[in-house]
Amino acid sequence: MDIRLGDNQYGKAETRLVRVDRAEAGHEITDLNISTALAGDLAATHLTGDNSGVLPTDTQKNTAYAFARDGVGEIEDFALRLARHFVDTVDTIHRARVAIEQYTWERRGHHSFVRGTGTRTATVTYDGTSATVVSGVDDLVVMNTTGSEFHGYHKDAYTTLPETNDRILATAVAARWRHAHPRNADWGEAYREATKHLVDAFADTYSLSLQQTLYAMGERVLRHRAELAEVRLSLPNKHHFLVDLSPFELDNPGEVFFAADRPYGLIEGTVVRDGAPDPGLAWW
Amino acid sequence: MDIRLGDNQYGKAETRLVRVDRAEAGHEITDLNISTALAGDLAATHLTGDNSGVLPTDTQKNTAYAFARDGVGEIEDFALRLARHFVDTVDTIHRARVAIEQYTWERRGHHSFVRGTGTRTATVTYDGTSATVVSGVDDLVVMNTTGSEFHGYHKDAYTTLPETNDRILATAVAARWRHAHPRNADWGEAYREATKHLVDAFADTYSLSLQQTLYAMGERVLRHRAELAEVRLSLPNKHHFLVDLSPFELDNPGEVFFAADRPYGLIEGTVVRDGAPDPGLAWW
Amino acid sequence: MDIRLGDNQYGKAETRLVRVDRAEAGHEITDLNISTALAGDLAATHLTGDNSGVLPTDTQKNTAYAFARDGVGEIEDFALRLARHFVDTVDTIHRARVAIEQYTWERRGHHSFVRGTGTRTATVTYDGTSATVVSGVDDLVVMNTTGSEFHGYHKDAYTTLPETNDRILATAVAARWRHAHPRNADWGEAYREATKHLVDAFADTYSLSLQQTLYAMGERVLRHRAELAEVRLSLPNKHHFLVDLSPFELDNPGEVFFAADRPYGLIEGTVVRDGAPDPGLAWW
Amino acid sequence: MDIRLGDNQYGKAETRLVRVDRAEAGHEITDLNISTALAGDLAATHLTGDNSGVLPTDTQKNTAYAFARDGVGEIEDFALRLARHFVDTVDTIHRARVAIEQYTWERRGHHSFVRGTGTRTATVTYDGTSATVVSGVDDLVVMNTTGSEFHGYHKDAYTTLPETNDRILATAVAARWRHAHPRNADWGEAYREATKHLVDAFADTYSLSLQQTLYAMGERVLRHRAELAEVRLSLPNKHHFLVDLSPFELDNPGEVFFAADRPYGLIEGTVVRDGAPDPGLAWW
Repeated sequence: MDIRLGDNQYGKAETRLVRVDRAEAGHEITDLNISTALAGDLAATHLTGDNSGVLPTDTQKNTAYAFARDGVGEIEDFALRLARHFVDTVDTIHRARVAIEQYTWERRGHHSFVRGTGTRTATVTYDGTSATVVSGVDDLVVMNTTGSEFHGYHKDAYTTLPETNDRILATAVAARWRHAHPRNADWGEAYREATKHLVDAFADTYSLSLQQTLYAMGERVLRHRAELAEVRLSLPNKHHFLVDLSPFELDNPGEVFFAADRPYGLIEGTVVRDGAPDPGLAWW
Repeated sequence: MDIRLGDNQYGKAETRLVRVDRAEAGHEITDLNISTALAGDLAATHLTGDNSGVLPTDTQKNTAYAFARDGVGEIEDFALRLARHFVDTVDTIHRARVAIEQYTWERRGHHSFVRGTGTRTATVTYDGTSATVVSGVDDLVVMNTTGSEFHGYHKDAYTTLPETNDRILATAVAARWRHAHPRNADWGEAYREATKHLVDAFADTYSLSLQQTLYAMGERVLRHRAELAEVRLSLPNKHHFLVDLSPFELDNPGEVFFAADRPYGLIEGTVVRDGAPDPGLAWW
Repeated sequence: MDIRLGDNQYGKAETRLVRVDRAEAGHEITDLNISTALAGDLAATHLTGDNSGVLPTDTQKNTAYAFARDGVGEIEDFALRLARHFVDTVDTIHRARVAIEQYTWERRGHHSFVRGTGTRTATVTYDGTSATVVSGVDDLVVMNTTGSEFHGYHKDAYTTLPETNDRILATAVAARWRHAHPRNADWGEAYREATKHLVDAFADTYSLSLQQTLYAMGERVLRHRAELAEVRLSLPNKHHFLVDLSPFELDNPGEVFFAADRPYGLIEGTVVRDGAPDPGLAWW
Repeated sequence: MDIRLGDNQYGKAETRLVRVDRAEAGHEITDLNISTALAGDLAATHLTGDNSGVLPTDTQKNTAYAFARDGVGEIEDFALRLARHFVDTVDTIHRARVAIEQYTWERRGHHSFVRGTGTRTATVTYDGTSATVVSGVDDLVVMNTTGSEFHGYHKDAYTTLPETNDRILATAVAARWRHAHPRNADWGEAYREATKHLVDAFADTYSLSLQQTLYAMGERVLRHRAELAEVRLSLPNKHHFLVDLSPFELDNPGEVFFAADRPYGLIEGTVVRDGAPDPGLAWW
């Protein structure tokens, strides 16, 4: 037979786990969406249905809940704990990826909370020897109402876009930063600081292209956070088109815009630190 | 023919309009999703395709953009202005409903913003004589980690739910408040205060049922805001189930929960002020 | 106190129930999303947290699953059975609304299925004395590539839309039909026939406005189905804009279109049979 | 400076294009969602905002619409045409990826259509020298009501899942197949046949694990389609849990199920043909 099994993995996706820490001074919420994916010696279940090497996805879910009994802490640490457990305790599993989304809540009382914006993320990969940690943020929606130009681009027979010296620049930041040495890091501070630098760089950069803004955002994070090796950004260009009000005998000096859904530009890029450790399985 | 046209309306839904006010001291964003719906003498277009009484939905959209050139202000005022325009200037249109969603942005610089949470809403109905104004908030997600019980309920052969003296109570508030006299109101203050009272009442109420919390929320708003006639609330009960960790020889003293998606309880109710003006077309 | 409880209801939303009938000749799937809402003497739970009159939403869910043990049958019958049970067996409950969505599956083998399109719906309301039944279909997306004009409409200072003698007409049909006498009906045949007539009328109507098409669709259903009293339709006008290819020295004779997301026209209307029984609580 | 630009690409995402072919015998619809992504010598725009090497995403969109004027044909051919155009005509662009989703419509008349299920996909990558073509299908939701077991799996302290000899197996197939020699292929036949084999293999395989079913699906496609090198499958395990009706003194012999949303198992795997050409940039 010339047909065979190639790369594969399996796991439990989107386990919704909420942990409450009931401190005297005020409760704390940890609100997570956990996805685990395992790979290893899994040919048997694919070829013959022999499941003896399969740790059920239900068990993966149970493990997340059971481990949370001792506390969750930073999502990077919790993901590392889960990933190591699966690889170190199940003979057939040689690689684990644990991806966690954390939703934000703002305190409004001793035990009352309002859901905030932005989603913190962590993805850990462990192969029995070494671990990689990639942290990030999703759904961080930002807008500059001026300070953005776009001109001087390549033109061909299909170009109709007029050049502009002043446009709205808006995007929903999806960022990932890779920790160079994923041990003993202050994950929480890295998250707060990286997110702050992303927003600040977006606000401060006088932009000639969203690519330039992207680079400035990633560069700012790396410049301030020596423990990070690399920043990856995916930035949809959420187009705001100036409405033509001239049919109504009105001018429109940069005031009234149509916010379009689709299509949108999508700018993706990486900013890296020279000499940083090899990513290994980080982006697997 | 014994078949005839009954109630009908038509309009342009979800016109996305962003207005930038470029003040020296700092730009301001007004980010809206506008839906207009018109009713009146519209039998001809339904029965014969004679469109002479139809103001195209495209024109409704244009009108929103053109009116925004002069400024938007509070969404209630903008909706009133649009509704009156359609009814007062088009002979065939006898009723207009304008519903606006406003998305929040937090300032991060002179002309830089980050998208916030919660959606402010306003729905105006105008029939050529009088107008009604209903304001509200959507997607206000709140959670109490204690201070909620549920017991003493009706039991029958299909009841399996155990009674509880301590549960998580979480919901996504959708609230609407009707203004008794929709003129000269301070819409913005009403929004900020009503929203604050909703969150405070949710946090402060020791809850024996989500219905009790709902009533407390509406009652608090009416008690503090004399200009409001009625509050309607729709509260999904976002269930958080305590995970049974006993198979793993662990207790779970109210710490680790599974946040379920579906099904969910849905509690809907109205709190009204006696002697308030008739709602008229407010909820049409 | 001049503040009091107004209209209210509560229930369990979106209970996902799949029933398998394991007939020799081939299995059958019934795939449902059930929402129940109850109203009655519920002041106590709102005002004091006394839940003695509250049938928990969890019990409502259990009841749906337990009743399905005997078979589901047509969703109208299942909804009637549930609604009657709640009102007839719980003293405090005086009104029940049961809304069911049914997803379609196409057989691909003795016990194998592929999910189809369109969602069948039924909403039953029962108040202890009489019941109303409204059936319908959602997500029935249809398109005509010609046979649609739009012109002769009202024009004002905000009109820019050019008139057209040939456009694409596309919509996602949401239809509801009210059964005049909700007993002993052949609900399944009514669904299949009503849906067929809606699609046929959409295809066959030479359209001068989407309103005209809407009326033709409702009228066709009522003309063929004497047991129906009323048809309500909500038709988003899914705009397809002809792309201007002239900058590229190309014509575009009705061939290349941009399918827009937002904004969209929204046409809503009712076609009624004169002398039909009063709707009662049907649209409550 | 030790910080530099790494991998990057940019493009226009989700250009919605509908083409109508107006043949005498009946119109045809081609309904597409097109995303283009370009990479190459793009450092300048990132580092200095010099856009001279940037083909605007707006131009990419225009190109798709202009090319559609001549006809679209199979989406693989249209994607190849676009990818080659960008790389071959813009000096700075060295790599293009064009991903197209095609929505299905069923004919209901000479020029009338109803939207169907399933989404056909094609992703083409071209680097100036060679092209890769990956085709696929999304949102193909299938269910077997019997013929699925799951037992004999690895057990540890966190295992609570009972073994089963009869369960519902349901998934939403996302499949991708790589064409070994992406020239002169009958893309349409490959799509129809691959999709048919996927559904048939799902239906026919007596399943001891979803992994086994996954392999059988991919293997069936490769066995029947010699022109394909590789099949990648991502199969969410859409859990259907048997409801415990014993509290109501009812048995439940595999009839009444709760269809859960989250969490879900996620099984991902690849079936490859030995000796197939190297994937090159296919999965980039």
